[in-house]
Amino acid sequence: MSAIRKLTPFAKEAKQKGLKVYHMNIGQPDIDTPEEYFEGLKNYHKKVLGYEPSEGIDELRSAFSNFLGKNNIDYSPEEIYVTNGGSEGLLFSFLMICDEGDEILVPEPYYSNYNTIANSCGVKLVSFETFIEDGFHIKSKESIEKVITSKTKAILYSNPSNPTGVVYSIKELQMIADVAHENNLYIISDEVYRELVYDGIKYESIFSIEKIREHLILIDSLSKRYSVCGSRVGMIATKNKNLREEIVKLCQSRLSTSSVEQYSALNLLKIPTSYIENIRDIYQERRDVVCGILGKIDGVKIYKPEGAFYLIASLPVDDAEDFCKWLLTDFNINNETVMFAPAEGFYMNNEVGKSQIRLSYCISVKDLEKALHILKEGLRSYNNKN
Amino acid sequence: MSAIRKLTPFAKEAKQKGLKVYHMNIGQPDIDTPEEYFEGLKNYHKKVLGYEPSEGIDELRSAFSNFLGKNNIDYSPEEIYVTNGGSEGLLFSFLMICDEGDEILVPEPYYSNYNTIANSCGVKLVSFETFIEDGFHIKSKESIEKVITSKTKAILYSNPSNPTGVVYSIKELQMIADVAHENNLYIISDEVYRELVYDGIKYESIFSIEKIREHLILIDSLSKRYSVCGSRVGMIATKNKNLREEIVKLCQSRLSTSSVEQYSALNLLKIPTSYIENIRDIYQERRDVVCGILGKIDGVKIYKPEGAFYLIASLPVDDAEDFCKWLLTDFNINNETVMFAPAEGFYMNNEVGKSQIRLSYCISVKDLEKALHILKEGLRSYNNKN
Repeated sequence: MSAIRKLTPFAKEAKQKGLKVYHMNIGQPDIDTPEEYFEGLKNYHKKVLGYEPSEGIDELRSAFSNFLGKNNIDYSPEEIYVTNGGSEGLLFSFLMICDEGDEILVPEPYYSNYNTIANSCGVKLVSFETFIEDGFHIKSKESIEKVITSKTKAILYSNPSNPTGVVYSIKELQMIADVAHENNLYIISDEVYRELVYDGIKYESIFSIEKIREHLILIDSLSKRYSVCGSRVGMIATKNKNLREEIVKLCQSRLSTSSVEQYSALNLLKIPTSYIENIRDIYQERRDVVCGILGKIDGVKIYKPEGAFYLIASLPVDDAEDFCKWLLTDFNINNETVMFAPAEGFYMNNEVGKSQIRLSYCISVKDLEKALHILKEGLRSYNNKN
Repeated sequence: MSAIRKLTPFAKEAKQKGLKVYHMNIGQPDIDTPEEYFEGLKNYHKKVLGYEPSEGIDELRSAFSNFLGKNNIDYSPEEIYVTNGGSEGLLFSFLMICDEGDEILVPEPYYSNYNTIANSCGVKLVSFETFIEDGFHIKSKESIEKVITSKTKAILYSNPSNPTGVVYSIKELQMIADVAHENNLYIISDEVYRELVYDGIKYESIFSIEKIREHLILIDSLSKRYSVCGSRVGMIATKNKNLREEIVKLCQSRLSTSSVEQYSALNLLKIPTSYIENIRDIYQERRDVVCGILGKIDGVKIYKPEGAFYLIASLPVDDAEDFCKWLLTDFNINNETVMFAPAEGFYMNNEVGKSQIRLSYCISVKDLEKALHILKEGLRSYNNKN
């Protein structure tokens, strides 16, 4: 059961009772999809909707290459393959570098879907701890090294991170790179939130560290930055020739990705950079509102995430899942309530996450204010009751 | 390397030399995609292109349920899951019923992509022979039984078949069902060509055999019957509750399939049945033309396939791949030549297929006549030369 959707039946019930539910549980942008996407659909020009090349249409591979280049990530179109969203890129990575029972390291808390994909192909995720007190930054090289076994094949992370919003500094990326280099591991860098980095921080991709390039697999997707989660257009890139041969086979095994989605994606990548900068500013403002409000609630522990549109908060409750459920079943203010994702599902060691929730800020500032007011009053009422 | 695209570089060269190449190598319909598909794209109604449910939108699951019902295949919408084409349904099947090293049986010759998918997830395909002399019908129950090992998990086939065009009779389906039932195997029935059955034969799905229903996984796709290969909309269905739980997890691991493609698919499934009947008649006429011409070429051995748009022909040459390559590099009539898929790639035992080719008839009758004339003259010239 997905950590993010676990409480969905209770949200459904709440809505059936006539309540409005603010969704701070799911990372689906609320921002309108750019008109360019829909124009792409309308302008599709072929009479027969045939298969496109398994690796993706040349134009889109080139467009991705240019797009990455803006962040000094240098992949030629031939080193890039179009995938069904970022998730297919992850599945391909797991299938090509792991045998059944092999292990992949992830910083914990981690995106819960990493585990779903790993389970689907017999791969075991193994986590190394990061802590809310550190804003979920990586503690040390040793913290990674100590969970390596003979079965370890790769280190996987999202940067900026879902579910923590942490953006790794070049020092942390260097730790990951060193561990990978010394232990002959692949690095799977999931950068789908790359442009959503706040406070003027300059984004660094691990790509900038030359020595690991042959071991690097880069995952990307258009979903979050262009509000096109439903388009399922992503990409996987690597300099490693052997891996590329494997990727081609995997691409061929599913023939191709949607033709019209690829042409529409091409349209999106032509949008001037200022569009994404504007989106980034919207999310930064929301983050500031969320941190401002949460920081003033008694007993709530947070940090200031540098990117993406998530953060993890520690609540003054013993069982955050019970509290989140209670918000949906037993609490409301003026017939409105709020839904969060209990953080337990983002941890292997569920105990650590037991009093934490993951919040996403994919709703307007006005709604965030209302939703977090409900959280604040809810906490008071829940703790008085118990 | 895909058996179907293996000679593509030579076709490309031929085109660069100014030759026209008739493509009888690939099973991509040439018939215009119905307007309803493009209307579906244009009419997409949401402002934010969000994720749709991982299992597929309810309306499309219902539409598939109705569609299957027309062939007396009875699955409720809840037993059907939308996939990225038929190929994702196959991948899901392999991932959920096999551990690494497990085996799946297929009649040989088989769709070469079955092997690509199997390789991608560590599954071993094992074939049981069928012969051109029998029109590639299944010889006996024993022919299947004798390749079963302790690792065998399922029997997989396409019906009508790619690459042979055979349509299995109820007697053959009963053989498969009996073997599966007695040996506790799953059956993966790939029915993407279901409506393309000729000569008034009534299509029978293995679904009609009640005792194997709990072990049956049905794969389907809209690609072939509606000329929408590039839409990547398919489905997987099963009555088996445990498998359904696994399918849900696999669906969740890739979040969802394209939103607009699902709505467009819904439009396609509303098209009256007469549309598909018309398509079937077009392909039947082409099959008759192909069989008529091939039957008159000295030394060519064929049979009359009952469905799909493929057949396998045995040529009076020792090495069909060399001949197919030669057609592209060294032969033409009035600056035109033809491309076939050497059949070797559809066999485990490459020797058997060495003098065979797979032809698809996804080009017009007029073009088929020209292309097969080139084959006839090419054979004469090639054999005189050698």
